[in-house]
Amino acid sequence: MTDPFRPVDDDARALARSLLDAAEHAALGVLTPETGAPMVTRIALATDPQGRPLTLISDLSAHAAALKANPAASLLVGEPGARGDPLTHPRLTLQCRARFTRQGEPGHTALAAHYLSLRPKAKLYSGFADFFHVTFEIDSALLNGGFGRAWRLTAPDLLPRASER
Amino acid sequence: MTDPFRPVDDDARALARSLLDAAEHAALGVLTPETGAPMVTRIALATDPQGRPLTLISDLSAHAAALKANPAASLLVGEPGARGDPLTHPRLTLQCRARFTRQGEPGHTALAAHYLSLRPKAKLYSGFADFFHVTFEIDSALLNGGFGRAWRLTAPDLLPRASER
Repeated sequence: MTDPFRPVDDDARALARSLLDAAEHAALGVLTPETGAPMVTRIALATDPQGRPLTLISDLSAHAAALKANPAASLLVGEPGARGDPLTHPRLTLQCRARFTRQGEPGHTALAAHYLSLRPKAKLYSGFADFFHVTFEIDSALLNGGFGRAWRLTAPDLLPRASER
Repeated sequence: MTDPFRPVDDDARALARSLLDAAEHAALGVLTPETGAPMVTRIALATDPQGRPLTLISDLSAHAAALKANPAASLLVGEPGARGDPLTHPRLTLQCRARFTRQGEPGHTALAAHYLSLRPKAKLYSGFADFFHVTFEIDSALLNGGFGRAWRLTAPDLLPRASER
């Protein structure tokens, strides 16, 4: 079996970053608390000021319960177009850990304002008592640019300027 | 905390079935073999003659390696529209177990012909030696029809005629 991954270059980094920056939603993978089995749900998505994935979820959701039990998470972003084989369209898998910021906690006001500046429709529920923000700390990524074009990326590949901001 | 789930009725069953029947791709959640962490990737999707999710994947893919180590899987189907809050669009989460059918195994020829009749573009790679079919046996499902509209479904809710066919 041959290694299916290509050497990471700036084009791969830019493609991955563009997929993450463009994402308004993501498929979120978590571990079901009772069974340990994977569970994939849809979440809204934006990025925080450091470029990390950021969402707003309800405590009533199944994924919130799962992330509270185990912060290990995965995100898939990059939508296929309406035409053609969906596997020819680039997509990005992130493996990450969820970090919560609840109402009243340090940084929540600024994070909520930042999120609403990017996702103004969320103002309908942003202030509900059961909603809180989740930032995803990236551990690694898998970029698939279509058949035969795959790269394994690290957090610095995706967040080169995180330490500068 | 109130129970966020509604009683299952025929409308919920029909919505879930329609989302699965319409899906040409899905977000697949698996467990990373080395770490047990969730990993979400994109796969092409169709349904088998019994209505179960069916895909065609490569042995070289990260999800194939994961499913070989542990068949526990989750699928998310139901695409958001191009406009509006992506969370207002219905989507379906399945929790399931992967079952492989490889070239040369009983039933492969019929399953491959069925798949190609639904997904003719896959003929470009269907015959490659590293590609095989995966059928997903549904354990349970979570249907989200938009804010405040959620149902927990069972396999018979989604496959009422499986035993008749």
